[in-house]
Parts: sequence; structure tokens; C-alpha cells
Amino acid sequence: MGKLCFGVDLGGTTVKMGLFTVEGSLLEDWEIPTRKEEKGAYVIDDIAESILNKITENALNREDIVGVGIGVPGPVTPTGIVKGCVNIGWGDTAVEELLKDKTGFPVKAGNDANVAALGELWQGGGKGNSSLVMVTLGTGVGGGIVLGGKIITGANGAAGEIGHMSVVYDETETCNCGKKGCLEQVASATGIVKEAKRFLASGNEDSSLRSIENFSAKDVFDEAKKGDAIAVKTVERLGEYLGIALGHIACVVDPDVFIIGGGVSKAGGFLIDTITKYYVEKTYPQCKKTPIKLATLGNSAGIYGAAKLVIE
Amino acid sequence: MGKLCFGVDLGGTTVKMGLFTVEGSLLEDWEIPTRKEEKGAYVIDDIAESILNKITENALNREDIVGVGIGVPGPVTPTGIVKGCVNIGWGDTAVEELLKDKTGFPVKAGNDANVAALGELWQGGGKGNSSLVMVTLGTGVGGGIVLGGKIITGANGAAGEIGHMSVVYDETETCNCGKKGCLEQVASATGIVKEAKRFLASGNEDSSLRSIENFSAKDVFDEAKKGDAIAVKTVERLGEYLGIALGHIACVVDPDVFIIGGGVSKAGGFLIDTITKYYVEKTYPQCKKTPIKLATLGNSAGIYGAAKLVIE
Repeated sequence: MGKLCFGVDLGGTTVKMGLFTVEGSLLEDWEIPTRKEEKGAYVIDDIAESILNKITENALNREDIVGVGIGVPGPVTPTGIVKGCVNIGWGDTAVEELLKDKTGFPVKAGNDANVAALGELWQGGGKGNSSLVMVTLGTGVGGGIVLGGKIITGANGAAGEIGHMSVVYDETETCNCGKKGCLEQVASATGIVKEAKRFLASGNEDSSLRSIENFSAKDVFDEAKKGDAIAVKTVERLGEYLGIALGHIACVVDPDVFIIGGGVSKAGGFLIDTITKYYVEKTYPQCKKTPIKLATLGNSAGIYGAAKLVIE
Repeated sequence: MGKLCFGVDLGGTTVKMGLFTVEGSLLEDWEIPTRKEEKGAYVIDDIAESILNKITENALNREDIVGVGIGVPGPVTPTGIVKGCVNIGWGDTAVEELLKDKTGFPVKAGNDANVAALGELWQGGGKGNSSLVMVTLGTGVGGGIVLGGKIITGANGAAGEIGHMSVVYDETETCNCGKKGCLEQVASATGIVKEAKRFLASGNEDSSLRSIENFSAKDVFDEAKKGDAIAVKTVERLGEYLGIALGHIACVVDPDVFIIGGGVSKAGGFLIDTITKYYVEKTYPQCKKTPIKLATLGNSAGIYGAAKLVIE
């Protein structure tokens, strides 16, 4: 057997884990619960124990393990200190050092959104490229930037905070971040529903959305695909602002490829086509052909990217 | 004498050259004309000859020279091929290989805007940092991105093309790049004059600018400093869009510092204060304190950055 590594994706509810070959094959994946008792004091021990058990269970040779990568829901310094994880209960935590002490393996840590981007570059929608910008459209809008195979974290850990680009100049409500007009306010699942409700409230136009109680972002896309005018307007609006934002990003880092992930990306080619239409109009001529593609690893992007962290 | 290197900044009219210590002291700088005859066929020879003459003239030891860096006005591939320089008359030119053959020294080439950003990071307004975004406000608006001490070029050589971020949604004229609403259309010297003329034409408001024939961007800043309402409106508009653009950039790469250079930056602290006012309002909370500073190397940024290209 060749060289192996572990990828760990630490979430607020579960820890996803994977055993990989260094070439990028996922041999096995599993989950353990995230024990948040006593401010997450047991989390590192639980992860270490699970890794060591997996080695015993599969009779792996310790010499074949190149290391453990871990994605965490908080900003990570270049020296491997997590600057607080609200979801886990952690304050500043030297996750690399602690997990290395418990397992005996080299450990590399990264922010979970950035790590997912690295995963998509390695074995997902961005495979075969050296740079990528990933946009995750979920409850909020997150992102990750990988250039020359390396995650960009930024001076304040804010690189890739694409959801908070102030692109919507006419927004009147305040975003969670305290500003007005963030991309997240129109392109997150929450934002999509809010925008559709605004269109509905602004007039009496017929819309199939009026008959769906507590409709979701998915409902908006489904009705837009059927041609409902209000749903179409909502999708066009998010596509326009995503196109503008990706156009801006191309003028800054000019990536090989854009990858769209997160729950909202299940809208598929319809979403990609809408974004691309506006992107082509709004970006620098040299970047018009940069592909905008769907993420392919889903919830596994985090374990793939984490594993890649420890592979040079 | 310690180790030395040459920095070369190839422009359409002159070639600026500098002899540096690897620690960053400029020992001597000089210029030669750019011979554009026969599609720039003599340019590399002229540069090589000037370098070799300088070595003889100063009785330098060839072993002390670590190499030659050169900034060129066109996109450069990672293998040192310039993909055409319209200003010089060059088509695709293997500038690194050619200049190495003529001088015998290692050569590294980069795009001039990117190289100037590297110079400002090394010994200019960004000194002491590891990442920087430079915005050059001249006839157009250019830029350069340096992260972890390395220039970001992008998949299409378009990284740092900040002037073409489509931030002005209500623009009706078309930019040189073919789009509408580029930052360059309000924040370049040309754009500033055009915007002031628009404000003047839109009403009969008194303005000292009405009595200045063929006023310049400098005139607009001078009159704004004196409180002329139209001039102030023009400066506020460019400050707002620059603040928005830098706010976007912070959400993408989150640099240590922003550096503002180019002729328009001679407006000084007044310009910086106006940009900062809007930046703080429009960027992600974690990045609000990122300093926005003036470039300090002026026209020498290019030779500094070029020299830095060959120093590891």
C-alpha cells in the first residue's frame, strides 16, 4: 500500500473524517459526533482516538501515514492556531500542536470554507487547475480562494469572504455583518426567499409562489424554471449580483475557474447559466471565458481539502 | 562589497535602470532611450550593453551580481515570455532567455504594474508587510497584487486589473475595455475631468472650474481643497467608488495594506482621507483597519520591484 493521509472536517454537530491515498482516492469515510461539552475540551481527543482506532482496525502501517489535515469553523493563523470557534465552544486553540501530540503525525489546519475550496481544486469541480475561487451559497454566502495550489487566508483571515462584498447599492436592510448591500443579502438561501417576498409584496402580480406556504430558495428556483415571473425576477437578480461579484474577483485574482457550491447550487445548470450571462457582461475582456462550474464533492469537499493540506 | 543586482523598467520612451544591493539600497540609477525601430529589435541588446558597461565602469565583480530583473509593459507568462508589448513593438518575446544570453546573468521578468507593486512592498509605502494591493491612478487605473511576497499574475495575466472592476452601475459611456461602469471611468485622471465636466454641464451651479480652460485632474483636486462644490462632488464620487472597490478587494485577498500611486495620488492625504471614509463604510468588519497609504517610490517603483524579482 502507498502513502496515506487523514482528512478531518470539524463541524458544530459532527466531525467528518476520511482516509485517503496521497493520490486523492477516498478509501473510507466516517463520522463521529462533535462533543461540545466543557467548551469542546474533548474534541481533539475524540478525533485522535478515532484516527488511531482506524489505523488499528485496518492494520495500517504508521510509516505509511503522511499526516492529518483538519478544517475548522474559524480563522486559522499560519502557525496553526484557531482564533476561536464559536460553534465548538473553543477560544484560541493550537489545534495543529494538540492533534500532533495526540496522534504523533504531522498536522495541518485550515479554515473550513478555504479547505473545501482546496478539496474542489484537488478532486472536485476544479480538478486539473492550479487556481480557483469557490463560492458557497448556503444559509449565508461563503468562499475560498486557492492560488498556485495554496489557500489564501488574508491579513485578517477575511480572504474569500465573498458574501460580504457590498455589491447591492440599493439595499435598505442591514446584513448580519453590520453593513448594507452584501452579496449574501441577495444570493444566500435566506436572501433569495427575502427578495422573492419583496417582489411579491411590491405588487399584485400573479405568482405560483403566493400559494406555497413558507416557500424556500429551492421553491423559487423550481418556479423560475417553470417560468413564474416573480421567481424569474428573483433568480435574475441573484444571478446579476453574483455575475458582478465574480467579475470583480476576476479583476483581482483572475482564477482558472470559479466553482459554485452549497445548498443553493443544487439548482444546477439553470443557476450557472444565469450567473454566466451576467458575468460575461461585467468582467474584464481577458477573463470572459473563465469557466463557472458546479462543485462536485458536496459535503465531502472538506475532508478532501483537509487531506490535501498535508500533502506537498 | 556585498551582493548586487540590476532592476530594469522598460517603458515606451525610456528604459529606467538601477543598480541595487540585495538589501534594497539603490546605489545608482540611470536611463537609456527605448529604441523602437524595427519592432524593438535592439531593445534587449541596448539593455544588456548598458548593464555590462555599468559593470566595467564601476569595476564590479561579476560574481557579486545575483541577476537582472525587468518589468515590461505587457503580460508575462510564468516561463518568462512577454505576450506582446504594443508600446515597444514586440510580439511574443522570450525576454528572460534573451537577456540572460546577452548578459550571462539570471533574469526574471514581470509585468510593469505588478513589478511596481512589488517595489512598493519591498522598499516603498508597503515596506515591512508581506502582502499589498497597489492601485495606480494615472491616465488609466492599474493595479498590482502581491501576496506572501509573490506577485499574483492570474490565469489570463489579468490579476490586479482593478481599473476594470464594474463598480459604476449608472455609467452610460463605454470604457476603453468595451464594458460600461469601470472604476477607471471615474477614478483615472481622464475620468476625473470627464466627471467634473458632467457635473458642470448638468446645471448652472457656480464653480471655479468654469474659469479654468482645459482643467486637469490636479485642478479638480486643488479646487476641491478650496471647497468648490462641483470639485468636491467629483472627488467624493471617485473616493466613493475607490472605497467600494478596495472594500471588494479586501473581501477577496484581504491584504496587509493598500497603496495608492500614480499621478493622481499627488493629491495626497486629501485623496487618502476621502477613499478611507468610504472604504470603512463598505468593507468587511475585520478589514476596516487595513491601512490605505500613499506610494513613496514614484517612478522608481518599477526598478525597485524589478530588482526584487531576482532576489529570493
